[in-house]
Amino acid sequence: MPDPHGLTGIGSLITNDPNLGDGPLGIMRDAAILIDGDRIAWVGPAGELDSSVPVVDLESRAVIPGFVDSHAHLVFAGDRSAEFAARMTGESYAAGGIRTTVMATRAASDDALRVRTRDLADELARSGVTTFETKSGYGLTVEDEARSLRIAREFTDETTFLGAHVVPEGIDADSYVELVCGAMLEACADNARWIDVFCDRGAFDVDQARQILSAGMARGLLPRIHANQLQHGGGVQLAVELDAASADHCTHLDDADIEALAGSKTVATLLPGAEFSTRAAYPAARRLLDAGATVALATDCNPGSSYTTSMPLMVALAVREMRMSPDEALWSATAGGARALRRTDVGVITSGARADLVSLDAPDHVHLAYRPGVDLIDRVWVSGHLRPTRKQR
Amino acid sequence: MPDPHGLTGIGSLITNDPNLGDGPLGIMRDAAILIDGDRIAWVGPAGELDSSVPVVDLESRAVIPGFVDSHAHLVFAGDRSAEFAARMTGESYAAGGIRTTVMATRAASDDALRVRTRDLADELARSGVTTFETKSGYGLTVEDEARSLRIAREFTDETTFLGAHVVPEGIDADSYVELVCGAMLEACADNARWIDVFCDRGAFDVDQARQILSAGMARGLLPRIHANQLQHGGGVQLAVELDAASADHCTHLDDADIEALAGSKTVATLLPGAEFSTRAAYPAARRLLDAGATVALATDCNPGSSYTTSMPLMVALAVREMRMSPDEALWSATAGGARALRRTDVGVITSGARADLVSLDAPDHVHLAYRPGVDLIDRVWVSGHLRPTRKQR
Repeated sequence: MPDPHGLTGIGSLITNDPNLGDGPLGIMRDAAILIDGDRIAWVGPAGELDSSVPVVDLESRAVIPGFVDSHAHLVFAGDRSAEFAARMTGESYAAGGIRTTVMATRAASDDALRVRTRDLADELARSGVTTFETKSGYGLTVEDEARSLRIAREFTDETTFLGAHVVPEGIDADSYVELVCGAMLEACADNARWIDVFCDRGAFDVDQARQILSAGMARGLLPRIHANQLQHGGGVQLAVELDAASADHCTHLDDADIEALAGSKTVATLLPGAEFSTRAAYPAARRLLDAGATVALATDCNPGSSYTTSMPLMVALAVREMRMSPDEALWSATAGGARALRRTDVGVITSGARADLVSLDAPDHVHLAYRPGVDLIDRVWVSGHLRPTRKQR
Repeated sequence: MPDPHGLTGIGSLITNDPNLGDGPLGIMRDAAILIDGDRIAWVGPAGELDSSVPVVDLESRAVIPGFVDSHAHLVFAGDRSAEFAARMTGESYAAGGIRTTVMATRAASDDALRVRTRDLADELARSGVTTFETKSGYGLTVEDEARSLRIAREFTDETTFLGAHVVPEGIDADSYVELVCGAMLEACADNARWIDVFCDRGAFDVDQARQILSAGMARGLLPRIHANQLQHGGGVQLAVELDAASADHCTHLDDADIEALAGSKTVATLLPGAEFSTRAAYPAARRLLDAGATVALATDCNPGSSYTTSMPLMVALAVREMRMSPDEALWSATAGGARALRRTDVGVITSGARADLVSLDAPDHVHLAYRPGVDLIDRVWVSGHLRPTRKQR
């Protein structure tokens, strides 16, 4: 379409701006949108759209901001379907967990990693994701972490250095923390916006996490943390202490954690795909929301514990399993993800925001939870351009 | 493709014939398929395929039998997303339940019903379903039930007369049962293969169900039953007593029910979409399987309690929530569904079977549960013909 152009025939429009419409989602009926270049130039009543611009008629479809997936691990090789099947059926399986993927990733060519990352990025787009974060963390050597971030940066600006995913074989924990904070950080920082640590049982403790995040922050990276997934620990409190953009997982929270999150700018990013795929109990989204914490939803796409790219399924699980309302779930999967990335230009449909939009084959966003597993993604605009949403063969 | 033609490059092939390959699924590696007209003419080692036929190279994708969805309600108008949202958030909602859909369906034109049914049938096909059953049950007058079945029959041969869905307003139960067994059955039977009753709290009791099913059987229809969804009752035992093809839902079972099913030809058809969308406890699939009962999985697609067409999600829920293995879930969603429809020509990939096949964007069927919410359907063949799997706009 030529610039500028309009979108009309919108059945319901989620702006995420309470000033523009009803409720926290700022829902508008009979609205139109004007797109100019990569930006939304105007949002308002359909009758007030400049009648000289060409328009796309969305035939009563709902329009939502593109999903913001603030937590994914897309740069890896291999899969762990056998480990998944064994876990689900209660069979023992001598799985190496993350280390299995590390070995496969190190052995893969740049092109193999690039193709996998591209395929997953395409899947995300087909599920309506217009902004996504992705991490290193399956290289765990200076060269392999740097390579992962170079490849990640080809697909997104929201890249995260996660050298501190686990301690790899062949090196003791103290030496590895030193490496992560030194040569590895130096090799990775130019291609990363964020620094992250897996602060949990079997990975890194709070002191190690603080040391790593502080080193990254001194190098200009912004902190975020894998916190409290496998057991209760100090990860969430550390996230708040460091003003991390997000504490991710939050599966095991006590009252003090919830209070700390509610009193901070740190977003609680919930990843129900991980609980779904490991048959774990879901995080206490209801308690977080009722306390006033900011909640984001993300996929955690990774080959071990959540090999999904479906933000619509995360919304459905949030409603079914975590008792979020359909409105809360939609907000958390869009504006919530944007907050978790400290972004104000995405996750909203307002004048000046990036033109990242999704139209649904449904009259409203409730259908994302009401119709679980159904592909309701109609069209996806990224920076004002329609992205192919059908698979290419 | 011209006839005959071959499929090669199959990463793994699920035949559901233990004589053809490994385990109950009859899994073959390095296999090829020969399609001739609407039938599978041959299945065997890739090296033995007739080299003179043209071939499609599936590039290491898995191939499975098309899903058989043996329980769906596709002929209706309106939606109940507001009722869904209220139920999920614990708000009270003066919903009429099934009766809301009955009013909308009666008010809809033939064309409106036809378009909705077609859209849902297309969704089923895109999720890999190659055979589906669908029911009347939202008309509940002689004319509206007959109309629903006429429209249903345009899309599938597996049509079910479900006049006994609920007792509609304006008539007492005894008179309605008499109507269902009399004029309504007479008006519907020519377009139905099956007769069904919702035998549960708030619908029809066992005696009424027996009367209705017997009337249908006397008219040449085959019985199936909605049994034991909302509470424990005699529906499952009645299904076994009448040699019904299937007892559907089976959410509340006691030991005697499980024993009766295991000792019968009646399939236990589990509909986890209903438990997902109503936040109910899931059926005891593990106990059924361990006792030797035959289990099918189906969508229960309907606007009130399970508005999904996704057999892949049913497989993922069966694994996650009902502790079926990925192999058991795949079998139940294909061969199990075929048993629930007393069909031997579908749900298998063997010589002479209907050429109903699905290729997956995955190396094996485990990925259907391992990658929840992800569209893994590559190509769908129905009766030997490729069906469009991408949305048409």
